Amino acid sequence: MLSLLSLRGRIDAGSLTPRAAIALCETAIAEREPEIGALVGRQTDPIVPERGPLAGIAVGVKDILDTADLPTQMGSPIYAGWRPRADAAVVSRLKRLGAVPLAKTTTTAFAFLDPTETRNPRRPGHTPGGSSAGSAAAVAAGMLPLALGTQTGGSVIRPAAYCGVVGMKPSFGLLPTVGMKCFSWTLDTLGLFTAGVADAAHALALMTGRPGLDLPATDPGRPRIGLVLQDFCAPAEPEALDALARVAAAAEAAGARLRDVALPAILAEAFGLHGTIQDFEAAQSLDWEYATHRADLGPLLRPHLDAAQAVTAQAYEASLKVARRAREHLPDLFAEHDLDVILTLSAPGPAPEGYASTGDSRFNRLWTLMGVPCVTVPAGSTGTGLPLGVQVIARLGDDARALRAARFVETLAHRD
Amino acid sequence: MLSLLSLRGRIDAGSLTPRAAIALCETAIAEREPEIGALVGRQTDPIVPERGPLAGIAVGVKDILDTADLPTQMGSPIYAGWRPRADAAVVSRLKRLGAVPLAKTTTTAFAFLDPTETRNPRRPGHTPGGSSAGSAAAVAAGMLPLALGTQTGGSVIRPAAYCGVVGMKPSFGLLPTVGMKCFSWTLDTLGLFTAGVADAAHALALMTGRPGLDLPATDPGRPRIGLVLQDFCAPAEPEALDALARVAAAAEAAGARLRDVALPAILAEAFGLHGTIQDFEAAQSLDWEYATHRADLGPLLRPHLDAAQAVTAQAYEASLKVARRAREHLPDLFAEHDLDVILTLSAPGPAPEGYASTGDSRFNRLWTLMGVPCVTVPAGSTGTGLPLGVQVIARLGDDARALRAARFVETLAHRD
Repeated sequence: MLSLLSLRGRIDAGSLTPRAAIALCETAIAEREPEIGALVGRQTDPIVPERGPLAGIAVGVKDILDTADLPTQMGSPIYAGWRPRADAAVVSRLKRLGAVPLAKTTTTAFAFLDPTETRNPRRPGHTPGGSSAGSAAAVAAGMLPLALGTQTGGSVIRPAAYCGVVGMKPSFGLLPTVGMKCFSWTLDTLGLFTAGVADAAHALALMTGRPGLDLPATDPGRPRIGLVLQDFCAPAEPEALDALARVAAAAEAAGARLRDVALPAILAEAFGLHGTIQDFEAAQSLDWEYATHRADLGPLLRPHLDAAQAVTAQAYEASLKVARRAREHLPDLFAEHDLDVILTLSAPGPAPEGYASTGDSRFNRLWTLMGVPCVTVPAGSTGTGLPLGVQVIARLGDDARALRAARFVETLAHRD
Repeated sequence: MLSLLSLRGRIDAGSLTPRAAIALCETAIAEREPEIGALVGRQTDPIVPERGPLAGIAVGVKDILDTADLPTQMGSPIYAGWRPRADAAVVSRLKRLGAVPLAKTTTTAFAFLDPTETRNPRRPGHTPGGSSAGSAAAVAAGMLPLALGTQTGGSVIRPAAYCGVVGMKPSFGLLPTVGMKCFSWTLDTLGLFTAGVADAAHALALMTGRPGLDLPATDPGRPRIGLVLQDFCAPAEPEALDALARVAAAAEAAGARLRDVALPAILAEAFGLHGTIQDFEAAQSLDWEYATHRADLGPLLRPHLDAAQAVTAQAYEASLKVARRAREHLPDLFAEHDLDVILTLSAPGPAPEGYASTGDSRFNRLWTLMGVPCVTVPAGSTGTGLPLGVQVIARLGDDARALRAARFVETLAHRD
C-alpha cells in the first residue's frame, strides 16, 4: 500500500516530486484497476500543485461527493453523467492543501446496500464491503494513499476492515458533509481510508485545521481499554472473535489496561432504532429520486424506500429521544469504567464470499448513531487469508485519543 | 394577500379549480412583479395536479433551494443558469402534496447580506429585508399564498416582519435542508411565508406529516407569555417597542398571562457567539466558491469570508459548547417562569429606507442558534405606514404551541 506519510516524507526530503508521487498512483492504477474496478472516473491530465502540505497526494473521492471537475453519479443511473457545479467542501479543502482529487471511487447506489462491481483486492471473489467500496479497495490495492468515504450505517469501517486497510469515521460533524448526497442527516459522516493510522491522523489534522489530531512524536502511553462485544445482537464469527481476543491479549501484554464492558440497556435500545431514524430521513432525502425515478433505484433500495414511506414522525421522534439519551449516557460509561477507548470488532467476520451482499454493519450502526470517533485497524487474517479488523472507539469529540489508541493497537498487530 | 386556507377552502367546495387557483397567482404576478422584482424565474406552463391536499397552491421557492425544473442561481453570478439534477427535499414533498412550485424567489447571494433588487411591496423605497427577500415580498404582494425561505441569522423572521406577512422558522431540523445551499449546518433552517398563522400551520403540518401542527378547531386557550427585550444588545426603535407593548397589553386584556423575563447571562453569551459558529462553518461550506470565484462573491460576503478564514477550530468548539449549554438552559427558563411562549420583537424596527442594507437580525440570531420555533406576526405599522412585527418563540420541538400562541397574538392585532 501507499503510505501518505511516507510519500510526503520523500517529497519533503526532495527525493520525490509531487508530480512523480501522482505518477506512482497513475502507474498503480494502470496495473491494478482493470482487475479491481474501484474507480468510476479519473483526471487524465491532473494539475499537480507544487506546494502545500498534501502536495503529491492523490485522493480517491467516493462518488456521492460532488466534484466540479469529474462527474458525480451516486452509483446510480439516475445521475449518469451528472456534473455538479461545485466541489464538496472536503474536496475543495483537499485541493487547497495541495492534494489532487485524482479519481472518483465506486459507491453502492446512494450509499445504500445494492452492491458495486468492485472486487476485494485482498481476495478476489469476495466483496470489498460497502457502501464506500471503491475507496477501501483503491487504498488496499495500493492505487491511492488516501480516499474519502461516508458512513451512515457501517460504510467506512466495514469496507476498510474487509479490505485490510485503516478506516476512520471521525466524530459527527468534524468533516463537513456539504456537497455530499444526503441519506440521513442525523447519521451521515465523512471518513477516511489510508494505509496506516498515522496517515489518517495526519490527513484529518490538515483537513480540519486541528494539528492536535496528528499523532505525537513521543509515546502516547498505554490506553485504558474497555472490551465490548455487543451481546444484544447476533454473535460474531469465531475467527473474528479470536482476532479480537489476540489483540486484547497483546494490548494487555504491552501494558494497556483491559476491562470487559457490557453495554447498558439504553445503548441496546438505541442500536435497535438506528433504522427508524435513518429510514424516516432517507424517505425525505431521496424523495425526488423516489417520486420521479423509482424504477431506476437499486433492487434493494427500492423496496426499502417503499417501506420507509410508512415510518411515522412519532416513531422517528421517539427514536431520536432514545438516541439522545444514549449519547448523553455514553460519557458516563467511559467514566464509570475509567476508559480511554472501547475496543470491539469492526465487522462480525471477514468479507463474505461473492458480490451479492456488502456484508453486515451490526458492529457499526450504534457507533454511527452515537456520533463517536471510530478507527478500524487491520488485525491479521483468517486461515484463508481474508483480512480482519478491530475497531477503536472514543468519546464524541475525542478523535485524538481514538487515533492514538488505534496507533497503539496497530503496533501490536504489526508485532503479531 | 392570498390565503392558502381560503384558496383550499374554495377548491374543496368546488368553487375554484386548482388550475384556476394557479391562474390567480399568475395574474397577480403579471400585475405586481414588474414593480416588486421578487422572482428570478418561473414555470410558464406549469403542470397543475388535480388532487392532493395542496393542489392549487402555487409556491415560491427561495433560489438557494434546488429545483430540477428551474435554474437555481443562489443570487450569485457564480451559479448563473445553473440547473440542479434534483429537487430539494421540501420542493419534492410539496409537489407530492399537489402544490406547484411556480417560481424561484430572489435571495441575497448565498443568503448572506448583499441586498437583492427586490422592493418592499408595502413601501416602495424600503428594503423587503433579507436574505429571503423575494419570498417575503411575493407573499406580501399577493402573488403567492406560500413561499419557502431559509434562516441562518434572521432571514425568514426579519423580511416577513418588514413586509407585513407571517413568517415561521420551525424547530431546527423539522424541515429537511437537503438540497439547500449550505451556509452553516448548525444554523441553516427552512421556513415559510404565508398570509396568516393558520396558513403556515396547515402547510407545515402537511409538509412534515404532523397533523398535530395544524391549528385546532377549538379555542386553544390563553397562553402564558414571557415578554423579552434582549437587554444585552442595542435597544430597539421606539415605534417597534410601542407595538410590542400594545400587543402585550392587548394579550393581557384578552386573558393571557404576561411576565417580564430577563434572559440569563448564558443566553447573552450565546448571542455573542452566533457569528463565530456561522463563520467557521461558512468558510468551509463556501470553500469552493471562495477558492475559485472569490472576485464574483458579493461586496459584503467577500470580505466577510476573508475574515472567516481566521476563525479557529478552538474558538468554534468553545462557541458550540456555550451554545449547547444555552440550549440546555432554555427549557429551565420556560419552566422557571411557567411560560408557554416568549414574546419579543421580530426586528429592531421597521424596514430601513433604501436598498443598501437588508436590515438588522439582532432579534433573530440567538433564536436561530437555539433552534427553537419562531413565528412573526404582523403588529400594526408605523406612523408612515411601515409594517411592524412581533415574534412568538416556543421550546425546541414545541412548534404546535408556537403556532397556537402566534394565532392568539394575530387575533389581537386584527382587533387593533
